[in-house]
Amino acid sequence: MKAEIIAVGTELLLGDVVNTNAAEIARMLSEIGIGVYHQAVVGDNRERLADAFRTALRRVDLVIACGGLGPTEDDLTRETLASVLDLPLHRDDGWACHLEKRFERRRPGGTISANNYRQAMVPEGATLLPNSRGTAPGIYLEHEGVIVALIPGPPGEMRTLMQEQVLPRLTGTLSSDDREAVLVSRVLRIAGIGESRAAELLESLLAEQTNPTVAPLAQPAELHLRITAHAPDTTTAHRMIDSTAEQIRAVLGDAVYGEGEITLEHAVGILLTEQNKTVALAESCTGGLVGHRLTRVPGSSRYFLGGIVAYSYELKSSLLDVDPELIAREGAVSDAVARAMVRGVRSLCRSDTAVAITGIAGPGGATELKSVGLTFVAIADEEGEECHRYEFPGNREEVTTRASQTALELLRRRLLSSGDGMR
Amino acid sequence: MKAEIIAVGTELLLGDVVNTNAAEIARMLSEIGIGVYHQAVVGDNRERLADAFRTALRRVDLVIACGGLGPTEDDLTRETLASVLDLPLHRDDGWACHLEKRFERRRPGGTISANNYRQAMVPEGATLLPNSRGTAPGIYLEHEGVIVALIPGPPGEMRTLMQEQVLPRLTGTLSSDDREAVLVSRVLRIAGIGESRAAELLESLLAEQTNPTVAPLAQPAELHLRITAHAPDTTTAHRMIDSTAEQIRAVLGDAVYGEGEITLEHAVGILLTEQNKTVALAESCTGGLVGHRLTRVPGSSRYFLGGIVAYSYELKSSLLDVDPELIAREGAVSDAVARAMVRGVRSLCRSDTAVAITGIAGPGGATELKSVGLTFVAIADEEGEECHRYEFPGNREEVTTRASQTALELLRRRLLSSGDGMR
Repeated sequence: MKAEIIAVGTELLLGDVVNTNAAEIARMLSEIGIGVYHQAVVGDNRERLADAFRTALRRVDLVIACGGLGPTEDDLTRETLASVLDLPLHRDDGWACHLEKRFERRRPGGTISANNYRQAMVPEGATLLPNSRGTAPGIYLEHEGVIVALIPGPPGEMRTLMQEQVLPRLTGTLSSDDREAVLVSRVLRIAGIGESRAAELLESLLAEQTNPTVAPLAQPAELHLRITAHAPDTTTAHRMIDSTAEQIRAVLGDAVYGEGEITLEHAVGILLTEQNKTVALAESCTGGLVGHRLTRVPGSSRYFLGGIVAYSYELKSSLLDVDPELIAREGAVSDAVARAMVRGVRSLCRSDTAVAITGIAGPGGATELKSVGLTFVAIADEEGEECHRYEFPGNREEVTTRASQTALELLRRRLLSSGDGMR
Repeated sequence: MKAEIIAVGTELLLGDVVNTNAAEIARMLSEIGIGVYHQAVVGDNRERLADAFRTALRRVDLVIACGGLGPTEDDLTRETLASVLDLPLHRDDGWACHLEKRFERRRPGGTISANNYRQAMVPEGATLLPNSRGTAPGIYLEHEGVIVALIPGPPGEMRTLMQEQVLPRLTGTLSSDDREAVLVSRVLRIAGIGESRAAELLESLLAEQTNPTVAPLAQPAELHLRITAHAPDTTTAHRMIDSTAEQIRAVLGDAVYGEGEITLEHAVGILLTEQNKTVALAESCTGGLVGHRLTRVPGSSRYFLGGIVAYSYELKSSLLDVDPELIAREGAVSDAVARAMVRGVRSLCRSDTAVAITGIAGPGGATELKSVGLTFVAIADEEGEECHRYEFPGNREEVTTRASQTALELLRRRLLSSGDGMR
């Protein structure tokens, strides 16, 4: 089954909003074996939206249109589809009543407007998909062999409707007969090794691959390898992917930190949990970013104690007990200060492991000897400490992203090697 | 001039990468008065890419295709355009030599492959746009009245080539005669007031607007209003936008915290700088997010000292001097503990102002009396302290985002009112 995603909204066309919905819908479809062949973005314009529908209806078997189902004059998706398919619109009394109740709760005594009722209109023969998170229901219909689903644009509503209403219907429709070969993707996540180095190591492996295919996707300070298999069914596809993933792991070893949605901070959290260790942080240039990343993982309170954001020189001394003379002599961005910070925070927080980061994020702060991007990351645990020096390229955001990524990766490597020692 | 953006890449189509390039290119074009009327995404597939080019060439005056200019077999954009326009490809000797030199530097003694030379191929009559950040040059040509630009996909390279090569050429081409009315947008950023409340307050104003138009764009925990003016020239457009912005500010007052790319943390930084005050943070559930946001602003070391990430109960007591009995009695997520944290961090860091946050980010941590999302934010300065209670909806990420946003907004309000006192 070939699919097309049409995202509707002038805010997308003008670039005020990034089209994350299309990416998310594409991933959802690919997981049930439906390949997206086209994506289009159109503004809130009846004529161009009608064109987009006509083009899609001609070239694919499934059209998902996202956005333009709101109550305002700008929201044209429902009416435009009905007019392209030449279907009359009928009011769904159940949804109209639901809207009235909802409206009454929010503005007691107010009158619901004619525009609001537009959200209860359904093209003849179509199914209304109730929306538990908003006033705009989805629409689902089949017309001359093509399935069309209309989904509201707010990401939370899109997600709920896709998962609860659209995907189950599509899975039902896809009998194994009329289903194309299933297309399944999995992403391997790699840290601590550059894209070109990874490509070199994997060269012969990648050259041979046709199914599954392996595509590198460069991410900020890490590398993702997308393995995609075409197979008659999901089980076979996963078995093919498993085999390729194993070959890649054999070459890259520990550099593969996880699969799928596992983030580096999550991988670190799993190791800390397994080893029953706690961690504390002393952050300077990253300002709290590493702590923020660690705490994005649910349950991180099991191993993350907290730490010090020592942005000023004074706090480095007063809180982390870094000798002010050391700062004066070596500079706040130095191997010696990073080591003093990590010792300070580990003893202050009484954690098993600790990480300290000090660097020049830029654009200011560079000196004759120290340029923007210079960063030191130190790690300490009961075995001792290590400190590494980096010169990260890029702007302020890129430098701090790389610094946080490197700190997490060093922590992961140290946990892996101490885990080996434990075995 | 009507434009279409074609983003090329299977990783976009499958949703492994979000199409940020299209949004960024659309914003760049709209700033010079070119309206984007269509966006399309196609995979690395010769036939569908050719179709996308043919469709675009038929319906717009400017086609920007982004991606698919790399050295691998998958990269088809250059060859496909040449074949659609029936133009032979010639090798650009200057770029070929540049590639050879670059290759020799990176792998001394290695041999450059035939695939690498594909990046030096240029359709007859087209201009090669040198890429200072990578091996893939851009291509710029005019064919039967339509301008086509091919741009590499990595965002840094896209940005550089658009800014240095494509936009200046387009501005040159757009003589005032054949230029459509200029389309200029500006975004007003609003915090501390909900979307529906803002819409109510602005109802009569918004109803009257046709040019400029005012469109609300809901963002996580804030609201953006995009004002868009059509005018014969940029100066007039800006004057029209100024007038509408003034009317909105008259209604919403201080809730408008900034315009354009100014973030809430930046607005806070400006106030702290103006008032020559420092700030320190005690973060619990946000784990460092507020510190990270404050330090994203260049020069934030002038006012941000740092603080404590007190994720564990122990650190709340040992570092912030919160009485363990208070935590046992009231719970770590309570008005009393938030106040104790803010007093603790202000005295520890000797800052003028301080902010403390404690909450239940979820999914775990809720009790019978305290549900996920419950959050307390406290602020202290030399005048005293305040503490507010919230129940934020959403998942872990949404709760922490809203908590950080609310903390910054409360700090901004407190600085505004103390600033008033100073006048």
